[in-house]
Amino acid sequence: MTFHHVVALSGGVGGARFIEGLARALPPDALTCVVNTGDDFTHLGLHIAPDLDTVMYWLAGLAHEERGWGLAEESFALLDRIRVLGGPAWFLLGDRDLATHILRSDALRRGETLTAITARLSSALGVKARILPMADVPRPTMIETVTEGVLPFQEWFVTHRAVPAVRSVRFDGEPTPAPGVLDAITSADLVLIGPSNPYVSIDPILALDGVRAALEGKTVIAVSPIVGGKAIKGPLATMISELAKESPSAGAIAKHYGALLSGMVVERGDEHTIASLPVRAADTVMTSAAERLRLAKDVLDFAGSLA
Amino acid sequence: MTFHHVVALSGGVGGARFIEGLARALPPDALTCVVNTGDDFTHLGLHIAPDLDTVMYWLAGLAHEERGWGLAEESFALLDRIRVLGGPAWFLLGDRDLATHILRSDALRRGETLTAITARLSSALGVKARILPMADVPRPTMIETVTEGVLPFQEWFVTHRAVPAVRSVRFDGEPTPAPGVLDAITSADLVLIGPSNPYVSIDPILALDGVRAALEGKTVIAVSPIVGGKAIKGPLATMISELAKESPSAGAIAKHYGALLSGMVVERGDEHTIASLPVRAADTVMTSAAERLRLAKDVLDFAGSLA
Repeated sequence: MTFHHVVALSGGVGGARFIEGLARALPPDALTCVVNTGDDFTHLGLHIAPDLDTVMYWLAGLAHEERGWGLAEESFALLDRIRVLGGPAWFLLGDRDLATHILRSDALRRGETLTAITARLSSALGVKARILPMADVPRPTMIETVTEGVLPFQEWFVTHRAVPAVRSVRFDGEPTPAPGVLDAITSADLVLIGPSNPYVSIDPILALDGVRAALEGKTVIAVSPIVGGKAIKGPLATMISELAKESPSAGAIAKHYGALLSGMVVERGDEHTIASLPVRAADTVMTSAAERLRLAKDVLDFAGSLA
Repeated sequence: MTFHHVVALSGGVGGARFIEGLARALPPDALTCVVNTGDDFTHLGLHIAPDLDTVMYWLAGLAHEERGWGLAEESFALLDRIRVLGGPAWFLLGDRDLATHILRSDALRRGETLTAITARLSSALGVKARILPMADVPRPTMIETVTEGVLPFQEWFVTHRAVPAVRSVRFDGEPTPAPGVLDAITSADLVLIGPSNPYVSIDPILALDGVRAALEGKTVIAVSPIVGGKAIKGPLATMISELAKESPSAGAIAKHYGALLSGMVVERGDEHTIASLPVRAADTVMTSAAERLRLAKDVLDFAGSLA
């Protein structure tokens, strides 16, 4: 079966890698990405949207293959000068990446919406898929830590290197989805959740007004970000222990999403962690363009078998 | 005679080159630079202060020797990306230079004054001389052209390449000097005007409230920006024809400043253009560090003979 309106929910590097393969596995106009903006923050007066940029750069074929974030061809001359001038250098601003931040910040200040800016920048980069920020209004993800109080996501993740134990995750601001988000989900014949951190990449999207309702009755498939009990990247394994009080596993991810899911794609050997949900085993660790495409095809094939 | 409190009025590349030599000819704490901010503008949400930066980079030993503006070691990766993303690329933003613009813009947005930011950035770069922006408030230089209406300075100078004929120059905003400017002039035992464009680099400073009054009775010496009837750089020669309705010459500069001046330093051979004002002939075209230092010493020697 062929899908014509696929919505991928995404945040972080794993989700963006998955989307890159998915875009190649689908017809050019079949894919809409709804991207987490809970990590967005203002740094030196610049509006930085890490998850949007990661998806955009991957879809444009410009992403740094190993690092996962930022541009493949990049230099950091500006950052060195910020250091010399006594400015804050904790966030790695690349010289080329900065063009995105500067143009977006300027456009936002002039009243353009994040949705419109994202469409314009993506199009300039030749991206065919539709990239929608989950929200045009600020919706910061806040991490309630055990030892450091409540921290904005980037402060916890970058400045504190995700070390402080997490007590809870909450979302500030208004839960208003960006225009087009609910429509995209409503008209979707398949919704995919990439191998992203559910707490800080996907939950921010699910917590927006109307999103869960729009997802009801849809075929929704998640790819597990936990492989053999470990997170492929980032602090997810620890967060599962802290927030769900259980061992990290694909099954813990399935349990977290609950009734939302129609099925789950897990790494070969992890099938036993999933109870009472259709499951497909695949190679989920994407270390090349070929593997990303193969995973996307496996997921679409699995979805076809369920739909 | 030794001068202990020298104020240099400056704008543009010629003035900054002169100041670099001057700083080496004087004791480290003897020099205060009052710098034109009429060229300041907002570009992509960044506050850009070309004349302040030029003085700061020259005094820090970081300026591009031949070009005169920007940093000696520079790359333009960001600008290429701005172009790719469809943004405005008419203003040459260097990757390293950008750190100055970003930190300054962010600090201004947080309520710091241009004076305080300039002191902080200069100090980070190891600049010993004091650099004072002429104003903390916006004071844009506007060019009334014959064919294109009234244009902000940068638009006339960069976008229109200073081609449209000039009918008049005016200064918008409030004529309030930055804190410290009048005090510096009042306590100066010598005031120097580098080889700058009087209309768009020095007049903006002179037009501020109290500046002309503070200069009264001071020894004020200007270095002619016109050499052998030609401007060393920029549109000055044409502007003299358009605005003063006479041929470009050192004498036309002397006439423009009028009673303000105690004396004038001109290129050898240009002495005859100066009437009824003490004049010193020197090598005023600075193409090396040695020539900049020699000119500074000549000017100080001339000032000593007048004081």
